[in-house]
Parts: sequence; structure tokens; C-alpha cells
Amino acid sequence: MNLDRRKFLKTSGAALLPAMIPVSSVLAMGTSAAPTGPAVKFFGDGEMFEPVDYLAELQKFQTATGIGRDRYGMGGSIEALERKFTEITGKEKAVFMPSGTMSNQLAISVLSGENTKVIVQETSHVFRDESDAAQTIFNKRLVPLAKDAAYFTGQQLQEGIAALKEAEAFKTSVGAVSIENPVRRADGRVVPLEEIKKISAYCRSNNIGLHLDGARLFLASGWTGVSIKEYASYFDTVYISLYKYFGAAAGAMLCGPREVMDKMAHLVKVHGGAMYGNWANAAMALHRMEGFEARLQNAIQASKAIFAALNKLPGVKISTLDGGTNIYTLDLDKEIDRKKLRDTLRESNILMPIPDGDRAMLMVNETLLYQPVEYIVNTFKKGL
Amino acid sequence: MNLDRRKFLKTSGAALLPAMIPVSSVLAMGTSAAPTGPAVKFFGDGEMFEPVDYLAELQKFQTATGIGRDRYGMGGSIEALERKFTEITGKEKAVFMPSGTMSNQLAISVLSGENTKVIVQETSHVFRDESDAAQTIFNKRLVPLAKDAAYFTGQQLQEGIAALKEAEAFKTSVGAVSIENPVRRADGRVVPLEEIKKISAYCRSNNIGLHLDGARLFLASGWTGVSIKEYASYFDTVYISLYKYFGAAAGAMLCGPREVMDKMAHLVKVHGGAMYGNWANAAMALHRMEGFEARLQNAIQASKAIFAALNKLPGVKISTLDGGTNIYTLDLDKEIDRKKLRDTLRESNILMPIPDGDRAMLMVNETLLYQPVEYIVNTFKKGL
Amino acid sequence: MNLDRRKFLKTSGAALLPAMIPVSSVLAMGTSAAPTGPAVKFFGDGEMFEPVDYLAELQKFQTATGIGRDRYGMGGSIEALERKFTEITGKEKAVFMPSGTMSNQLAISVLSGENTKVIVQETSHVFRDESDAAQTIFNKRLVPLAKDAAYFTGQQLQEGIAALKEAEAFKTSVGAVSIENPVRRADGRVVPLEEIKKISAYCRSNNIGLHLDGARLFLASGWTGVSIKEYASYFDTVYISLYKYFGAAAGAMLCGPREVMDKMAHLVKVHGGAMYGNWANAAMALHRMEGFEARLQNAIQASKAIFAALNKLPGVKISTLDGGTNIYTLDLDKEIDRKKLRDTLRESNILMPIPDGDRAMLMVNETLLYQPVEYIVNTFKKGL
Amino acid sequence: MNLDRRKFLKTSGAALLPAMIPVSSVLAMGTSAAPTGPAVKFFGDGEMFEPVDYLAELQKFQTATGIGRDRYGMGGSIEALERKFTEITGKEKAVFMPSGTMSNQLAISVLSGENTKVIVQETSHVFRDESDAAQTIFNKRLVPLAKDAAYFTGQQLQEGIAALKEAEAFKTSVGAVSIENPVRRADGRVVPLEEIKKISAYCRSNNIGLHLDGARLFLASGWTGVSIKEYASYFDTVYISLYKYFGAAAGAMLCGPREVMDKMAHLVKVHGGAMYGNWANAAMALHRMEGFEARLQNAIQASKAIFAALNKLPGVKISTLDGGTNIYTLDLDKEIDRKKLRDTLRESNILMPIPDGDRAMLMVNETLLYQPVEYIVNTFKKGL
Repeated sequence: MNLDRRKFLKTSGAALLPAMIPVSSVLAMGTSAAPTGPAVKFFGDGEMFEPVDYLAELQKFQTATGIGRDRYGMGGSIEALERKFTEITGKEKAVFMPSGTMSNQLAISVLSGENTKVIVQETSHVFRDESDAAQTIFNKRLVPLAKDAAYFTGQQLQEGIAALKEAEAFKTSVGAVSIENPVRRADGRVVPLEEIKKISAYCRSNNIGLHLDGARLFLASGWTGVSIKEYASYFDTVYISLYKYFGAAAGAMLCGPREVMDKMAHLVKVHGGAMYGNWANAAMALHRMEGFEARLQNAIQASKAIFAALNKLPGVKISTLDGGTNIYTLDLDKEIDRKKLRDTLRESNILMPIPDGDRAMLMVNETLLYQPVEYIVNTFKKGL
Repeated sequence: MNLDRRKFLKTSGAALLPAMIPVSSVLAMGTSAAPTGPAVKFFGDGEMFEPVDYLAELQKFQTATGIGRDRYGMGGSIEALERKFTEITGKEKAVFMPSGTMSNQLAISVLSGENTKVIVQETSHVFRDESDAAQTIFNKRLVPLAKDAAYFTGQQLQEGIAALKEAEAFKTSVGAVSIENPVRRADGRVVPLEEIKKISAYCRSNNIGLHLDGARLFLASGWTGVSIKEYASYFDTVYISLYKYFGAAAGAMLCGPREVMDKMAHLVKVHGGAMYGNWANAAMALHRMEGFEARLQNAIQASKAIFAALNKLPGVKISTLDGGTNIYTLDLDKEIDRKKLRDTLRESNILMPIPDGDRAMLMVNETLLYQPVEYIVNTFKKGL
Repeated sequence: MNLDRRKFLKTSGAALLPAMIPVSSVLAMGTSAAPTGPAVKFFGDGEMFEPVDYLAELQKFQTATGIGRDRYGMGGSIEALERKFTEITGKEKAVFMPSGTMSNQLAISVLSGENTKVIVQETSHVFRDESDAAQTIFNKRLVPLAKDAAYFTGQQLQEGIAALKEAEAFKTSVGAVSIENPVRRADGRVVPLEEIKKISAYCRSNNIGLHLDGARLFLASGWTGVSIKEYASYFDTVYISLYKYFGAAAGAMLCGPREVMDKMAHLVKVHGGAMYGNWANAAMALHRMEGFEARLQNAIQASKAIFAALNKLPGVKISTLDGGTNIYTLDLDKEIDRKKLRDTLRESNILMPIPDGDRAMLMVNETLLYQPVEYIVNTFKKGL
Repeated sequence: MNLDRRKFLKTSGAALLPAMIPVSSVLAMGTSAAPTGPAVKFFGDGEMFEPVDYLAELQKFQTATGIGRDRYGMGGSIEALERKFTEITGKEKAVFMPSGTMSNQLAISVLSGENTKVIVQETSHVFRDESDAAQTIFNKRLVPLAKDAAYFTGQQLQEGIAALKEAEAFKTSVGAVSIENPVRRADGRVVPLEEIKKISAYCRSNNIGLHLDGARLFLASGWTGVSIKEYASYFDTVYISLYKYFGAAAGAMLCGPREVMDKMAHLVKVHGGAMYGNWANAAMALHRMEGFEARLQNAIQASKAIFAALNKLPGVKISTLDGGTNIYTLDLDKEIDRKKLRDTLRESNILMPIPDGDRAMLMVNETLLYQPVEYIVNTFKKGL
């Protein structure tokens, strides 16, 4: 990939980590204090299995439930997963997509139809992380609003559209608005529900399609308490990732009205995304979605207890972000010995970004449940 | 056209005018003080002939020089004009284009090649007045710099490109920079030559194509004294309009290196711009380019004398714009009777935008030479 | 242009001609027997004026009727011409286009919508003479039927579409059919009216758009007696050229339902075809359309008389083509002195393709009316 | 998918089969004569594992070799597989692609560059089974040669290109030729090596890119004895499928010169094909490629023995196709009891298409090795 690896890792919050450690190889880390079981990880949105664990998990699911093979996205686990997503989102039809980029691009392309303009957050994945696909492949002009911010308000959307009309002599129209929520480049901050409602009302009354890049929508839901179905109800189409926290190696689901979704199979095909089988990705997502929301709530409770305890320690400050979800800031006093802290945690199978200088970002996910709160807190204390 | 007519006319500075008056029908206006000859017009970049005058002008050129017919842009006046433009711009090859939009889009498309990004002024025609053609037809992402300003500096260009790289994880490159000069939406202001030099040096050392939207380049040249050839030398491709001040009903010339220009005939054809004959547009441009630069200098001198005289009148203030070319501001005291002034001027065959409330824009062009300076000044005085 | 000039001229039937001769310069040809007036030309679809004559014609029209200037295709002669074409074709809306290629491509692009396939004659301009624009710019797959033939029947269309469905596993649909009539590459042959009716009925009952490339539709009408309006009634959109026989230097009219045509201004703009003024092309077409159909009928009558007379001469054979319009074959006996015949005709201001070896094509157009039938016949006799 | 399922299955040779049977569930089929182990299948190009077997196979590979995780196609099994394919094909660089369609389209798009035309077999996957992607997304005109045939010769290619030039007045060029080999829609027939050599020589001397759709290239190699590397040497780019016979659930490898392949990551990304992880597909291919060529040779030997034996039975005729690979025809006498034969085979865990009426196609693949030749022959005899 023409990917700036350093920047990407920085973005993904993993820059400070020495290496990715397979869950199953944890046993081999072998210090006397070594815990059994997989590592607790204060980074990432969920467990990302190494192959050995991935196979073990799928094997469990196969034994318990059976996995059906799809052929070109028809039948088997893919069909089951598509059905599950229509239930979760309340949309008429769900379609498996190889990537979030394809989901976003096809959604805004179809929703905007013959109109040239699509409004997006300046910080959004569509605008910043899809390599200008909208403008160079899907024939759309992206108009970014809310530079460097997590979101634009309903009011700002209206003003932005009005300003566009004022700025140009030839009439071209806004065909779609795309909202990322939560916003990865804004450290996981959410778009407030009331603004989503205003944006949705405005788009509907102006015949503008509205797409939700909900790659991490379950995180928004976990922290705000707004259900996936309610979020989805304000949008025409919704994309949710299968690999951020559902453990699949790859894949995405795009959900929406039948009229829109019926166009997707052809569009996926002509762009080269119609693959022979994706049952392994679908089966893992099906497997891991079972109980996910409960596990996430438990992880949130655990994180609250952990962070409250750590905040009582001298020189340690963990804070929530305004409008944030699973990302927290960690500030450490200059006096604290970073190396000792980092080593102690790592030897105890706790992987936490410890900043060399300024602040680090901690991410909450279900790996926090791998160890008791006390174990994590005590290990941290020991490391100070 | 999906053109907001009101807005367009406002932009073109003609909003305050009652009607377009054919040059030849001026005689029919018939007040006692009526002058003979065509109207002096303080709007527009040059004489825009009504059909009757257009035919008369072409007839003159036919008699004096002869007009050759082209076939699909080959031979005749088109060929002669293309030759003339290679001389004027110092470029290897010039190609007639039906419009400035086609000139700009094809130039930036070819110059940027496989790269996705093209940098433009936020106020430029490419960004604001080409209906999102770049993003929806020509597969380019336009990145606007210098919001609401006439230009970006060389330094701002470098910073803008650096910021893009910082903002995105996946590498995509800037393939071309397009500069409009002078900038119509910035009231005709020019890009300073020193900034052009810096931008050119930067682009060349970074292998970035550089296009000049010089629709009105002869105006820039007229006011700054920098020759067309010098301006062109800093760019890979240059587009100059045939109808803004050369009198043609339509058309544009795109000039550049042979390697780039050799691709144009095919591109014009597949976009539907290969017309059977355009000799009438080319012949008019050839005809009117003769002596144009001298006439423009005379008009500038005349305007200086006129504006100096009018500025001595009480309640009248005509000012130059910082970095401006042929557009000037006219402020009038509240006490002045607008209607009387407007009527007096019009009856004397002088068409000048007189503001109802605040400021109007006056444009200098070769129609100022239709009457002596004194006549214009005295008529204005009479109207006060 | 990347145009193979030799091939093009061959196609246009002008290959055997020494040079194009301005109508007004005929007087300067100066042999003793030289007739006054412009040349009779047995090639081309109509009079193609040299600039000097073009200006004279427009001057006549200006004097008689007045010519209105358009601005960006709005108002003036353009508006008048668009109105005239809605009357002629019976369509709701007509739009001026810079070229036939743009007319054809935009029509089939809009008519076919999201469907990928467009059926065309293998010999059609769309398939052969538009530089693969459909496939490389307008995102359509052209499916050619009736290789080397003038047309496909309604039956063949149905079979062709059925065969496509059989040939492919993934469903993609035919969104439009485009018919050229008459067909230039089939020597001007027409598509039989009964087949047009069948094709039209099939397309309407299958929700397939139907476009008529009627660049030379007035020739079809002239020879078959079917009115322009009737032809147009079977199609959704119709394009008619302004320069093949209406004398304009360039331009085309696309006519169709308001819903389709309302999309054109934007599409013309983004492809770079929105020109400032085209009143000179529109005015010439308006001027020359007056009485055109009557003149054409007179020319047809004259040609019948001429050809009948010539066919009585030994060694001369002029034949009609099956389903032909204005193109006829001329065969000459080996014994006839080509040079003498050619020179005699030319000196008498009659330009006729005389084959060196095998057959030539003669074209009938209104220039045949420049001289009496007897004059033409007698000159030919004299040349034998 | 907008896939005509019936037609697809017919194409894939599986139409006559009652159901797909998981390898591991064979034991559950439970007739007294039931063999242990997976089914012998006379259809398909290789073993297509059901999930339960897929997991078991990957588990074996993980235990033996270890599987490395990729991130966005970087590292792990993907990197290992890409390295392996550069060795196999002798090309500079190999890139994992989600599908054959993406491989083919991106290859011909990059190879043809600014040229509009790409020559393909009329029976090829690119022409028939990619939903008009070339013309509607990748901006290329496909020119099909050799209607209904397996291939065009070098001579036919030259003539085809010459005919195109003759047929059109505007010059556009052939930028690439794509050859499918073997050709699925021609029942697996190969393109003769000597024609490949001629085509390759012609393309190289005319600066035309040459792509090999070698989805099933290992089958061509297995039957012709020409090595993968030799085949690849005649082409610029080569695509080979990972799921036809290497067992992966999905995926393809595109191999070629570094200059071409370096463009792929960006193109895959903007078309939405950049997936997070594909290690499971890559690992399976790595696993199954070990020893594949030897197993295939064994299967070919087995098939020869089986078919020779069966051909001695009355009313049974199995024939090779001219230029064929793994597909054979099976004709049965009217008298033979189809139901009995089919049931007997199926109960013995042999899945073979038995025609109801006319001929069926038998496919040879490595599942033939699951049982001894005698067992298969004897079972067939028993079923007669």
C-alpha cells in the first residue's frame, strides 16, 4: 500500500507499542508473574485475533452453530449476517462489502445520484482516508465542513449549503451528506444526537440523501446509550465495520432501503469487489456479535473502576474527552519512571501505551475483561 | 443553462445596466446631444459586438486580409490563429478550444496525469465556475487554497501541500497547480510576478505541472507591463480567451509543450468539442488582436486622465484596487442625483454603472477610446 | 485532429476533387465558357459556404430579419432556433450543441441511465466515428449490430438483446438503442420506416430509450417523404446537424422530452461545450432552413432529369442505391476520356467526381439548382 | 448478485449435481458400501472446502508452518504469497487482489494507458463475465475477436487491428491485448503456445501491453507441460486465481513488472478493494500450492486410466476436447439406466455428472486421488 505506515500507526493509536502479540503466545512470555490468558490491551477497538486464535474461535463457532459457505456472497454465513444486520439496523437490506471505503463510496454515489456535491466532515474517513476515491473514481465533489472538528451542526450544514449556492454561478446540487460517527480522527468523539436529528430533518425535507459511516457505531452506541437502530433511523444508509471490534479479518456491512441496496451487487462487481467466498469473515462477525454489547458495557464499567483507581495515584491523570467514546487521555508526571512502568505492565500481560513525553491515548475495549480490575490496578501501582 | 442569471450578471459587473445596446443602433438613440459612433462602456473587458457590427468587422477583415475556412479545426483562420498564439506565448503548440472550461479542464487533466490532486485558488474559475467538472468528469480532486483571496503565495503553496501530506495516511500526490491571473472573482486582481516565480520554481523542482488560466491575461499584461511571453514562460500550459476582449463570439486558445498539446485533439473530440468550423471566431480574434495592446495602453492612459478629472469633482471618488487591473471602484456622495447623472451619460452615449446606493465597479476597456477624454469628463460634469 | 485526412475525405466523397472552390471566386475561374454564379457540386449534402459567401448570406439575413445575439446559449438566434426545432420535431425542448458527437453521447448517456449497454448499428457514427467516447468518457458499452449493413431490423434487435442475455451470466441491461438514419457509412441509405416502427414499439414496451442520430434526417425525409415530425415521433431524442446542409459553420440540435433535455445544459457545461456565443451558427441555420425542403425537392427533380438524360449517353451509367437517399453511383465505360470530361465540366463550373478507374459516387444537393438541367446535361455531353 | 444462477451453474459444470456435499460430512452419508474420506468429484477445478474442512486444513498449516497476519495486505501470509508468486511467474512483483475481475481490469487499464482500445477473446471472462466493467468503470473499449472460439491467432490479431484502423477515421489506438488461457467458456481449451508467441512478438514490437488472464493457468500448464514461468514470460502481466484449485475462499494474484505493479495499491484502494486482512486466503493458497503440480499430474494419470477403462464399457464414451485441459465429454447410450448409475456412484461417494439426455462434461481435478482408480472404475461398472 502507498500507506504512510508511521502515520497510520500513530492514527491507530498503536505507535507506542513494541509489537503485536498473539493472544495464544502470551503463555510463552514467561515471566514468573506471568498471567495466563490473552493480553489486556489499552489500544484498539476490540480484540484483533492472530491467526492461531482466529482459527480456534471459528472452530468454536463451527462446533456450536455450524458455518455455511457462501458462493459469490450468496447463502451461508453471509446471508445469515446480512439478515442479522437488517434486524440490528432496521433497514430493509444489508449487503456485505469488502471494505469500508467501498461501502462509503457506493452509498454516497448512489444516494447523490446525478448531483455533483456531497457534504462531509473535514476530519472524516471519506474525506481524508479514501485516497480521493470520491473525486477520481466515483465522480463526486466532496465538500468538507467543520475543519479539524468532530462534526458540523445542523445549522452549519444549512449555512454551508447556502454558502455554496452563493459562491457559484452555475447551479449544481448537493446530493448527499455523509456523517462519520464516532469520528476516528477526532479521537472517537461522537456527533450529538440532537444535531443528527436536525441534519436528518433538513436532508429529508430537502431531498438530500444521508449516509452514516458508522464503522465504529457500536462504540458510539456503547457510550451514548443510543441504540444502533435509533442511530440508523436518521439515515438512509449505514455502514458498520466487521473488523474493528467484531474480530473479522476484513469486511463491512452496508444497510439501507431496498431501492438503494438493490444496486449494490452490480456496483460491487464492476469495481472488482465481488469475491468468491467471504464466509470466514461473516462467520467470525456472527460469532463475536453474540453478546458483544453486554461485554462492551462490562468493559466500560471496568474501565471506570480502573481509571478512578489510577487517578488516585500521584502523578497519574486519565481524563475523558468531551463527547468521547472509548478513547481517554493519559498524562504522567515527569518524575514517573516510564521504562519501569511499561516493563512491569508488559511482563504482567498488560499492554498500555505509556507516553515518553507528553500525553498518550488509552483505548477501552473488551480485552480489559481478560483480567480483574484489581489485577490491572495493582500491576500499574507496582510499576510506578 | 443552469445559470443563476442574476448572480452571473452581478459577477460580470453588468447588473446595473439597463440593456445591452448594439453599437450600430446608437445612432437611433437620437437625443439632440447624441454623438455619432458606438457607445463608450465602463463595463466589460472589451467590445462585445452585436451581430450587425460583428459582420461588418469580419467583412473588413475579409476584404483586407481574406479569411480561410477551417475544417474540423484544420487549416484556414484557425491554423493562422494557432500560429499567432505560439508566437505570442512562446509555447510550442496552440490549439483552439470551444471554451475556457474545456481548456482548463483538459490542461489540468493532462498535466496531473495519474496524480489525484490539483491545487487551485479558492476564488478561481476552475474551482467556482466550472460546475464541479474536475471532480465529476475529469477525475481530479481540486484542493482550494487562499479562501476569498486573489492568490496564494509560493510559501502558502508549499505549506498547503505539506499540510495535505500530514492530513492523510494514504499517499496521493499533487499533479498540477492551476493559477488564474488576473482573477475575475477577485475583481481582476493579479497574482504578483514574484509569487508566480516562486510557485513556478517550486512546481518545476517537484515535478508538478503548472497551468495558467489566463482568460484575461492581456489585461494583466496591460496593467503590470509583464509581457504575455514572460507570464507564459513560468507555466507549462496557458489558456487565453478569445471573447473577453478580442471580440470573438466564442472560443479559447490553449498553448503548451508539444507533448501535452498533441493529446488535445483526441480529448476535445471525445468530450464532444470537435466542431466542424470555427473560422468566424478565429478570424475575429485575428482581426482584433491587431493593435490590441496599443489600443489597451491608450485606453489605460485615457482612463487615468478621466478618473483624475472626475476625482476633482465634489462627491466623486474613483479608486484603484490593490493589485488591480481594469476594475476600479466608484463611490458617490449621497447628495448626487443618480438618475440625472445616469440619464445624462446615457443620452450622450456613455454607459457607466452608477450605483444606487453604495459603490459601483467601473471597468476600463478600449471602448473608452470611442470619445475624447474631454467629452466623457464634460458629460459627467453636466450630469452632476 | 488525429484524423486520417485521406480516409476522411474518401468517406465524405470529396477525395476525387482537386480543391474546394469558394462560391464567389468562381467568377475568377475565367474560361471563355465560364458561367456566372456559384459552382454546381455533385458532392456534399448541401452548400458549404466559404467565408466571403457566409458573411454575405448572414448579412442578407440580418437585413431581412435581424440577428439576435445569445449569451451562453441563452436568447437571440439560439433561442429562436431552439423554438423552431421544437416545432419541426414535435419534441418538448431543443438544445443547441457544439457537435453531433456531443449530441449523440449525451443523449444515449441520459437515456440509458444506470444501464450499461447501448445498441448501435455497426456502421453508425456513434460506433465508428466518435473515437470510443461512449466507452471511455460516457461509461457505456456500445453493442454493435448489423455488421457492414445499413441497419438492423426490429427482429434483429430483439434477437441481439436475447443473445446478449444468453451470453452473459451477470445481468446488465440495455438502456438505450441509437439509430443513425440515414447512414453515412452506408452511402446514405435509410432505415425502413416499418423497421423503425417495430424498433420503437419494442423499445417502448421494454423501457429502453431510443435515440435518433438524424444528422442528415432532412435527406431521409426528402427521399422517403416521411416527415421530420413523424420520424421524430418514434424516438425519444433526435439530433439534427446544422452544418451538413443548413450551411452553419458548426453546431447541432438535440431535441427531446423536457425531462431529458433539462439535464443537458449541465452536461454540456461540465464537458466543456458551453460556449459564450453561437448566434452566427444559429442565424445561418435559421436563414437556410427557410425554404430548404422545397429547394431539396427541386434538386431531387432536377437530378432525376439530369441522370435520366445522362443514362441515355453511351458508356454512362448512373444508378440509385437500394434504400438510398442523395448518393448515386456513376459508372463510366473504359473508353471515355476521363480527363477531358473532368476538365470540360470544371471549366463550366460543374464539379463532379469522375472516377479514374471504377465507380464514383455522385451526391445530390441544392447546388444542382444553380444551373438549368439542360446546361448540366449539355456540358456533360460536350465533355464526352 | 445479479447473477443468473442457473446459467452460472451450467457454466461451472455443476448443474447436474444434486447438492454440494461437505468433505467431512461424507461419513454421515452412511450407506453400507460408503467409503471413508471425502468425495471424488468429477466437476470443478479443484477441492473447494466446506468451512469445517477449511478450518482443519488451515489448522494443519498453522501447526506445521505458522500463519502470519497481514494488515492491509502488508506482511504475514500475504507477503509470503506475493513472494512465492514472483518466483513462480518470474515477474518482479506480485500483488494480492480480492477478485479476478479487479486483477483483469486494473491490469488492462494500466497497460493500455491513454489508449482507448483493448483486444480480447469474444469468449473471455473479461468480455463476457465482468459486467461491462471495462467500458463503464475503467474507461476502455473492449474489441472482441474470435467469436465463439477459444482464441484468436497472431495473424487474426494483426488483421483485427488493421481492420479497426481501416474502419475508423479518427485515430485511436489499441493499448493492450488480454488473453484468457485456458478459456473457461471454451470448455477449458488452451491457446496454442505458438500463437501466444506470435501474439507476444507482435505486441512487443508494436508497444502494446499484453495481459494473461491465467485464472486457471496451472490447468493449462498441467495439460500442455508448458511451465507457468514460460507462459508468464510472454506477457507483461499475469493473473492467477487462488480459489479455483488452490482452495482459498477468495482472492487472486496479479504479477508483473514493478513499474506497472507499483500502481496497483492505490488503484485497489480507490476502487474499494483494500481490505484489512486476507491472511486466511493467502495461507490456504500457500498451504495447497505445496505439491499441487505433482498432485495434478497424478490426477491426470488417474483420469487417463479411469477413462480408458470406462471407454471399454458398452455404451460409454469419454472423449478429450481438441486443445482441452481438464474438461472431457461423457456420452452415454440411451439404454443405460441413468438413475441407477447416478445413485450407485453417489452412494459410493463419487460425484459425477450423469447426463439425462445428451452429453455431460466431466472435469478432472485432484479429488480423483481420494480413491483408487479401481474403486472408481468398479463402482461405475456396478452402476451400469
